[in-house]
Amino acid sequence: MMPTASTPAPAAPAHAAHPAHGPSPLARTEAFSDGVFAIVITLLILEIKVPDPHSIPAGQVAQELPHRLWELKAMFIAYVLSFFIVGTFWVAHHNVFKLIRRTDRMFMWLNLALLMCVAFIPFPTALIGEYVNQPIAIVVYGLTVTARSIMLVLLWNYATANHRLVDSELPEPLIKRVRGQMLLAPPIYLAAIALAYVNIWISFLLFAALQVHYMRPGQIDRHAKPVH
Amino acid sequence: MMPTASTPAPAAPAHAAHPAHGPSPLARTEAFSDGVFAIVITLLILEIKVPDPHSIPAGQVAQELPHRLWELKAMFIAYVLSFFIVGTFWVAHHNVFKLIRRTDRMFMWLNLALLMCVAFIPFPTALIGEYVNQPIAIVVYGLTVTARSIMLVLLWNYATANHRLVDSELPEPLIKRVRGQMLLAPPIYLAAIALAYVNIWISFLLFAALQVHYMRPGQIDRHAKPVH
Amino acid sequence: MMPTASTPAPAAPAHAAHPAHGPSPLARTEAFSDGVFAIVITLLILEIKVPDPHSIPAGQVAQELPHRLWELKAMFIAYVLSFFIVGTFWVAHHNVFKLIRRTDRMFMWLNLALLMCVAFIPFPTALIGEYVNQPIAIVVYGLTVTARSIMLVLLWNYATANHRLVDSELPEPLIKRVRGQMLLAPPIYLAAIALAYVNIWISFLLFAALQVHYMRPGQIDRHAKPVH
Amino acid sequence: MMPTASTPAPAAPAHAAHPAHGPSPLARTEAFSDGVFAIVITLLILEIKVPDPHSIPAGQVAQELPHRLWELKAMFIAYVLSFFIVGTFWVAHHNVFKLIRRTDRMFMWLNLALLMCVAFIPFPTALIGEYVNQPIAIVVYGLTVTARSIMLVLLWNYATANHRLVDSELPEPLIKRVRGQMLLAPPIYLAAIALAYVNIWISFLLFAALQVHYMRPGQIDRHAKPVH
Repeated sequence: MMPTASTPAPAAPAHAAHPAHGPSPLARTEAFSDGVFAIVITLLILEIKVPDPHSIPAGQVAQELPHRLWELKAMFIAYVLSFFIVGTFWVAHHNVFKLIRRTDRMFMWLNLALLMCVAFIPFPTALIGEYVNQPIAIVVYGLTVTARSIMLVLLWNYATANHRLVDSELPEPLIKRVRGQMLLAPPIYLAAIALAYVNIWISFLLFAALQVHYMRPGQIDRHAKPVH
Repeated sequence: MMPTASTPAPAAPAHAAHPAHGPSPLARTEAFSDGVFAIVITLLILEIKVPDPHSIPAGQVAQELPHRLWELKAMFIAYVLSFFIVGTFWVAHHNVFKLIRRTDRMFMWLNLALLMCVAFIPFPTALIGEYVNQPIAIVVYGLTVTARSIMLVLLWNYATANHRLVDSELPEPLIKRVRGQMLLAPPIYLAAIALAYVNIWISFLLFAALQVHYMRPGQIDRHAKPVH
Repeated sequence: MMPTASTPAPAAPAHAAHPAHGPSPLARTEAFSDGVFAIVITLLILEIKVPDPHSIPAGQVAQELPHRLWELKAMFIAYVLSFFIVGTFWVAHHNVFKLIRRTDRMFMWLNLALLMCVAFIPFPTALIGEYVNQPIAIVVYGLTVTARSIMLVLLWNYATANHRLVDSELPEPLIKRVRGQMLLAPPIYLAAIALAYVNIWISFLLFAALQVHYMRPGQIDRHAKPVH
Repeated sequence: MMPTASTPAPAAPAHAAHPAHGPSPLARTEAFSDGVFAIVITLLILEIKVPDPHSIPAGQVAQELPHRLWELKAMFIAYVLSFFIVGTFWVAHHNVFKLIRRTDRMFMWLNLALLMCVAFIPFPTALIGEYVNQPIAIVVYGLTVTARSIMLVLLWNYATANHRLVDSELPEPLIKRVRGQMLLAPPIYLAAIALAYVNIWISFLLFAALQVHYMRPGQIDRHAKPVH
């Protein structure tokens, strides 16, 4: 609608060949990813269903309802756990994208595959909520977050190989330390999966411990400092 | 985008070599939060289910359906109430972020915890809609909004302690007045929870009254004026 | 982003001391509204449920399923209708915001009330889909879009009274013509509601006719031209 | 954001009186579309339901649950397929919008119709998941993606006819090659639909093959290179 917004200025020769509008492809990929994260984190609550009124005999609602809500406690714990795990994934995604300078088709598909793992999380969350005592629920949950962690490593490896999509000055030791942080997750998740057959609460503890580790200020941030 | 938003120390000339793309971490946190608010406020309607056609005997739909819809009236009231409460939370979040100039890892987690409370609201909304006469429904609803209000206070305290994340010129009396407005909510919500066991309509009235108070133009805005 | 968008008065040197980050409050309100529109328009599909496999006798699925899908045709029509109605609402919201230059607390609440009507649309859409022959379904649908149309008029009246939130040079005749276009909808919607008790297809025809009228290029756009 | 995008041409003095706020209509249409894509891709998981605990006899959950999850395998395949198809649609939409320079009302409606097809995808995805052996499920799925592909061709034809909404220097051969890539999809989708009545796995293979073709780096990108 604005003349200048659509027609390239005549006095901008280099620019004339690139009459781009709006944000860069990288910024749009980032915004798209942010959208997926925001939606996933907000959808989690939809997996917790209000107790069906028809399942409670009339006249006993006042006594029954509090117990019914209390029975949902595994759901609530799964909700809080998943909320913070998705939140951590978002922060990690963020920190990686802060170091990325370019994008290409392959990077977009790797990012999409990562987002697919993130978008899958509401399913195992609901599964844990419904079947908190079943190791298989932990297995599905653990495999989902493991898959996402492996995708993050692949994304990082692809982007940093020969400094493909990052700054040419990004120091190699930093690249390695970031990868090291990322590689921590899969073995711990896999251990949590295996230990679910011993005691599911040990699994939960492992998930939570890794969570706390990643949430401590200054992990990737501190490493990222030099380039910021 | 502005130097003050991304550089913590004034003596950070390395920043010039920082080919950042896209918005600042603070702007992205804000956009992410806005996304969560927009999704929560729009998901609320999903909790209201259309009456099941199979539950109405054939041939009686024309007479039955209006009654069935009328029975949903508690749902509709809960919907409108929650819509405006989430709207108010969004405005409050907004007003706080207008005064924030920097971000750090701790701030992001506090903000995420606040968003978790907001994202939880569809559950107690559905609960009130299904069990409007049950005090326990009000209790769950009240605890959710209380938790969110306490998170907002914690967020504000963290950001303003020693002017950690706000302008160094932000006047102390303003910081205190904003906190004062925030501290108003928890006791009123808790009173509404307690009074639910006397009469749930008194509770609703308290929620609505606080709502109107916060919606009046010029509460936090007016206080915020000096820095705008 | 431009000074004129955030400072009402030209003589506001205090603005220099305003280290604002990110977009202006108006831009954020607009982005928030866009988010709500995008979510509503995408949620509509969730109201169409896949036929329950358990409701079809084993061995008859191949013959039964096509019929079951065909029975959903009212749902599909309601889906398409609502998709374009929400789309039109988005365009109209857009066109109004293009003329808005400032925002205030009251404007935000009016906008929120308008968004509440928009966010409500999935419910009557599902209702029409399930009870296509019931005039009451048309009534609920019609009242929802009428409420949204009235909110749009209120929003416009509030913003343009004494050129409160629009350009001082915005010509009065243009303001009136835009309002005229907006005032067209409520009586037509109300007529569609009344006629639902005669024949619901006349109602649909009226909704669709208004739709086509608003979708024609150059309605509000053409009027808006002078200021662009 | 780039100077040329926001600063009025010197030969457009009337423009100076236009204190526009926020992004251009084209950027907002793009952001709105991105929102719809992000929501659709994230909603897909909601179609996969956790096995109902009440449907499993108490005491048999440990043995039963893994089988129940295994029975969902068609759902998971449909999920992955749809995730990547929607992802590809997003990338294609993106690549088209990179070449668009202006927008008008007709373009917005065509884009909205395209988004409607995209937003519809969760329904046939759930259908395939529930009725993986039924050709009719493939038919509905295939028709949805065919409709979206035809809308993309219409959008492109409309935008490029007489260089209506694209750069006047955009070379005609490029326009044709992009259209050629787009025209590839409908016949293949229609073949997949027809072959569903022979063997549904041939259909899946065709969908996947087209998917891989479009996902290879350098399809539309390479064509688009000259203008970037």
